[in-house]
Amino acid sequence: MAVNIRSVFGKRIQRLRQARGISQEELGFISDLHRTYISDVERGARNISLDNISKIAMALDVALKDLFDF
Amino acid sequence: MAVNIRSVFGKRIQRLRQARGISQEELGFISDLHRTYISDVERGARNISLDNISKIAMALDVALKDLFDF
Repeated sequence: MAVNIRSVFGKRIQRLRQARGISQEELGFISDLHRTYISDVERGARNISLDNISKIAMALDVALKDLFDF
Repeated sequence: MAVNIRSVFGKRIQRLRQARGISQEELGFISDLHRTYISDVERGARNISLDNISKIAMALDVALKDLFDF
């Protein structure tokens, strides 16, 4: 379960990022997170916290709930 | 920002829990999290992770995005 939700969430982030035509590095810069951290999240390799989820939502300019629209 | 999102999220969890008429202890039992952890989350005192957010959503029997419907 835990592994799966990370993967599903990661794919959602990747889709939203790519729809905006920005790189992992650019998303990292905007959200004040490291590029490799963004990469890990998108691969489902991180148990991301609420604070960082919120940073990514702001960087992608979407409501938090839109990150979980899957 | 970080502190605020924790508080808003915590209040949302509390509202959903109370709407179901269950105690923090009962929610903790169902979600396999400690009662004091549930209390901390509701008070906005924890930077909860995706895995635990997912556990709480399942325990409350709601979609993940419904936890962020604020």
